[in-house]
Amino acid sequence: MDIKILQEQANTLRFLSADMIQKANSGHPGAALGLADILSVLSYHLKHNPKNPTWLNRDRLIFSGGHASALLYSFLHLSGYDLSLDDLKNFRQLHSKTPGHPEISTPGVEIATGPLGQGIANAVGFAMAAKKAQNLLGSDLIDHKIYCLCGDGDLQEGISYEACSMAGLHKLDNLILFYDSNDISIEGDVNLAFNENVTMRFQAQGFEVLSINGHDYTQIDQALKQAKKSTKPCLIIAKTTIAKGAQELEGNHKSHGAPLGEEVIKKAKEKAGFDPKLSFQIPPSVKIRFESALELGDLEEAKWKDKLKKSGKKDLLERLLNPDFSKIPYPDFTGKDLATRDTNGEILNVLASNLEGFLGGSADLAPSNKTELYHMGDFVEGKNIHFGIREHAMAAINNAFARYGIFLPFSATFFIFSEYLKPAARIAALMKVKHFFIFTHDSIGVGEDGPTHQPIEQLSTFRAMPNFLTFRPADGIENVKAWQIALNANVPSAFVLSRQKLKALNPAVFGDVKNGAYLLKESQNPSFTLLASGSEVWLCLELAKELEKQNLLCNVVSIPCFELFEKQEKAYQKRLLQGEIIGIEAAHSNELYKFCHRVYGIESFGESGKDKDVFEHFGFSLEKLLNFILNKQA
Amino acid sequence: MDIKILQEQANTLRFLSADMIQKANSGHPGAALGLADILSVLSYHLKHNPKNPTWLNRDRLIFSGGHASALLYSFLHLSGYDLSLDDLKNFRQLHSKTPGHPEISTPGVEIATGPLGQGIANAVGFAMAAKKAQNLLGSDLIDHKIYCLCGDGDLQEGISYEACSMAGLHKLDNLILFYDSNDISIEGDVNLAFNENVTMRFQAQGFEVLSINGHDYTQIDQALKQAKKSTKPCLIIAKTTIAKGAQELEGNHKSHGAPLGEEVIKKAKEKAGFDPKLSFQIPPSVKIRFESALELGDLEEAKWKDKLKKSGKKDLLERLLNPDFSKIPYPDFTGKDLATRDTNGEILNVLASNLEGFLGGSADLAPSNKTELYHMGDFVEGKNIHFGIREHAMAAINNAFARYGIFLPFSATFFIFSEYLKPAARIAALMKVKHFFIFTHDSIGVGEDGPTHQPIEQLSTFRAMPNFLTFRPADGIENVKAWQIALNANVPSAFVLSRQKLKALNPAVFGDVKNGAYLLKESQNPSFTLLASGSEVWLCLELAKELEKQNLLCNVVSIPCFELFEKQEKAYQKRLLQGEIIGIEAAHSNELYKFCHRVYGIESFGESGKDKDVFEHFGFSLEKLLNFILNKQA
Repeated sequence: MDIKILQEQANTLRFLSADMIQKANSGHPGAALGLADILSVLSYHLKHNPKNPTWLNRDRLIFSGGHASALLYSFLHLSGYDLSLDDLKNFRQLHSKTPGHPEISTPGVEIATGPLGQGIANAVGFAMAAKKAQNLLGSDLIDHKIYCLCGDGDLQEGISYEACSMAGLHKLDNLILFYDSNDISIEGDVNLAFNENVTMRFQAQGFEVLSINGHDYTQIDQALKQAKKSTKPCLIIAKTTIAKGAQELEGNHKSHGAPLGEEVIKKAKEKAGFDPKLSFQIPPSVKIRFESALELGDLEEAKWKDKLKKSGKKDLLERLLNPDFSKIPYPDFTGKDLATRDTNGEILNVLASNLEGFLGGSADLAPSNKTELYHMGDFVEGKNIHFGIREHAMAAINNAFARYGIFLPFSATFFIFSEYLKPAARIAALMKVKHFFIFTHDSIGVGEDGPTHQPIEQLSTFRAMPNFLTFRPADGIENVKAWQIALNANVPSAFVLSRQKLKALNPAVFGDVKNGAYLLKESQNPSFTLLASGSEVWLCLELAKELEKQNLLCNVVSIPCFELFEKQEKAYQKRLLQGEIIGIEAAHSNELYKFCHRVYGIESFGESGKDKDVFEHFGFSLEKLLNFILNKQA
Repeated sequence: MDIKILQEQANTLRFLSADMIQKANSGHPGAALGLADILSVLSYHLKHNPKNPTWLNRDRLIFSGGHASALLYSFLHLSGYDLSLDDLKNFRQLHSKTPGHPEISTPGVEIATGPLGQGIANAVGFAMAAKKAQNLLGSDLIDHKIYCLCGDGDLQEGISYEACSMAGLHKLDNLILFYDSNDISIEGDVNLAFNENVTMRFQAQGFEVLSINGHDYTQIDQALKQAKKSTKPCLIIAKTTIAKGAQELEGNHKSHGAPLGEEVIKKAKEKAGFDPKLSFQIPPSVKIRFESALELGDLEEAKWKDKLKKSGKKDLLERLLNPDFSKIPYPDFTGKDLATRDTNGEILNVLASNLEGFLGGSADLAPSNKTELYHMGDFVEGKNIHFGIREHAMAAINNAFARYGIFLPFSATFFIFSEYLKPAARIAALMKVKHFFIFTHDSIGVGEDGPTHQPIEQLSTFRAMPNFLTFRPADGIENVKAWQIALNANVPSAFVLSRQKLKALNPAVFGDVKNGAYLLKESQNPSFTLLASGSEVWLCLELAKELEKQNLLCNVVSIPCFELFEKQEKAYQKRLLQGEIIGIEAAHSNELYKFCHRVYGIESFGESGKDKDVFEHFGFSLEKLLNFILNKQA
């Protein structure tokens, strides 16, 4: 180890970051400067090939504190990723490759981070995914590490404890977390809000814990060597000074979220032997060192490709990378009255049996969610992941599975507890990854468990989220079709499923699930069109019969996926929406007004009682709904 | 301690619970039976007055595992709360006082629990509230304890770690947690998903930890005595057998969520010396013992009232219990162009200065949220609570503050991170407590921090939640009026506030914030009405001017609170909605279709860039909006 070049590298990273933030007049220099020394040493340990950011056996580097993005981008640029100096100069500008927080459109960014705590859970997910990849492809082909940089804020978020508990449980020895312990928070000294014994905390969760000075190159290097040999996940507590190198702003919480200022940067450069008049400097020695590392990375991948050839795993890997969704032997639910959680359970088992990379689990509700994959074993040998009652970590871990490159993960819980994992579902949507959410117990049909367990506003939440498909199938056939769409869509999907049995529908009269909504019953010039999803569709068919007895023509539209219907052409929508359009859904559902004149939903919380009593109480009976439809018509 | 009566009490609680669940044919006997012994001993330690469930200095008893509600109701009935044997027999039936999970409409239920993890955080909140109450009223008047029963599921949820970290930080020696460690989870043995060293974990967070056999009365009693004397928060790890007493179902995970069955219950009763043919039995000795405890509780409160009289704190307590909102000297923001986070910061300071029970804090964003209460000190002596980056625990802790009886708490974070706390906000709404949420950085106006920090679907989420008011004020005047409404409303409210400066509006032409929406500009028979909230209102006023230049009359409606406008009479709504109604909001906002013919919103995630560039990119400029309004009109 050449301390001089390490120092020069670190300072190059520091000043590139500071210059970026200064030029943008926006950003977070504190952590970027504080972590530069660690990154400088890490660059010697990191196995990656910047010429191919998708090489499967690369180490993963995660910045859980996404606000330190300037440092990440500086590092990616120096390392030779497709990120130019001009990109760095465009930091935080519209349409740049260097947005405020890391996004996966930037080469070398493994996963979008920003909301604190997500990145740690992602890192645990990558480590689990690597273990599973090793299980499938062998430890010859998969032997990389996951490095994650995190800070006080990450460690305060509940999701970090949830995820680290999983890391300890599964003895993820491929996981190395750096805790950037700089004693500073936005409101002041971190002790104002955080005085845990972090060493003891992580030991309690099954980690090996090392403590170092985060600005001492030898200590950083020694710690990395030890961590790489550990038989447990490893936390390296690195005591650092926020804004290290920024002279009078060193250790000051003001350096967290605002540019340092020209003068401070100049003085810092001067002190470090850099030309204070120049911005975005890269000393030749640093350039040379990273160029040689780049070639090394390329060589590493070449060697790996050789191994792959000899491994006999090439076909398997090909199937994992490009799964074939065209030949799934889906169950036939024609004429079968079943709860959609049950039909979905059957589908899941078929998918998992036919797609090597398809796997997942529930937040300790598998028997209720019907997500058990039978005879397919438990993680890591098998496909069933027991997430414990950790919805949030589950979703963030599965985001990493989805980003790993060869997996199709699902996360399951009751629909009401989708709230616990929503922040991670949002990141899935932002990244447009294939991550499937199984949400059972979808409405007041939950019954006796009462309002704390009965979703009301959750459909509205997910329908309002961009890049996300929310399916609420009305029977097994719709459920199958929803999966066919979801597997081929390049966004995450949710399946919102009933606890109670639902009647099987007749075939569509016009349109299909792929259009988001379709006609189940059509007549010329109807007085009404009833529009519903899930358990309310059958009810609408019954209502239509009653209305016809009164010589009122009534069409029925099933709308299993609001988002897909929104995207249809006007002509298609018009064909479906005739007469007075009335939405009927056992949920809040104000968004249905986009297509409906009137909506019959639920505007209060649910009630504890037998599911039939509760449906009746909220007016989901033929009599009350007929009154609603007809009275208002008058 | 009379072991025989303890055993008899425990068995009475067991069989009442089992009978309730059996009669309802629904419920969770496992934990109820497993915890009966602990509750039997706890009944001797608990200071409460069932004749007055609102006595301020009572101990608080929280079932974090709300699914054990049958046990709680059995205990409340025996203790003499207003909950009859018939109420127990109506367990889980519609409109009963004994719903599936505890709700605050039942006398003796301190807080609604059910979603796992919430109750632990509530218990920490009650303990913090008690500390603050002690600070205000003195330790003579406030010296009670908080007892909380929790299970494996609670301890796996991230919120439990967040909350316990706060408990350790503040050395909450009034907090006693029982961990019902029964080694069983829904998916099987708890070790499948959880193998933490729980003792070490809680010690790392500053707890004293005791370990006992949860069915040994002497050990339970000794542990309680030790915990009550501890100078730290205390965790009692109670090793228990799930469904203890239920014979062959003891220790079986099948006892978690399904009735035990008549036969099992009969055999269990027989074994315990109860008549197997009788249901809902209460042995006379048990009845007598609880009756004497009831009188003791009444006496305790009487003594306390004496103390109160002599304390000189009566007036203060009166003001805390019944705060006067009519004389707040709100700031005058007329003509002032300010960010609403700034106007809100001023209002908060006025409220906190004038209302003794008004307090709160941010999840480490106080300087950005503008929620610092100046010169009012830090908790526990002062009013500023530093929650750390723990949004979820913050909201659940403040739910307990709101339920404590004398506090008006607020929780603050960026609007995007409202997602991290949503499950607790929902419980606030379910309980209809006054809990104020300050959500700043309300839109793409966040700018450079990019899509992970820019709310899109969050307004839709909160607007879809029952019993909740979401205010998005357009200037300081609306902000003040929103607070006036929120303080007097018996539901929680959120204030969704801008980071960027907004122009001060002219006075209303018709209507008011209290109607949810009102007219800022009115003409006869307008071609359009533009409807907007927050930062888009001023834009609509500008648009109206432009349209008038083209001889098109245009009204402008500000809609700071969608929920209140929904509740207005049709005539009021009609007066506001004339011509073609066009909603304009920098959010997803499909719910606006309830009132609008067309909506201009945002259907993708945000972008990182200067706020003006980002607004322009998403078409929030005069030119693009005019095109939208006019093109479609053609």
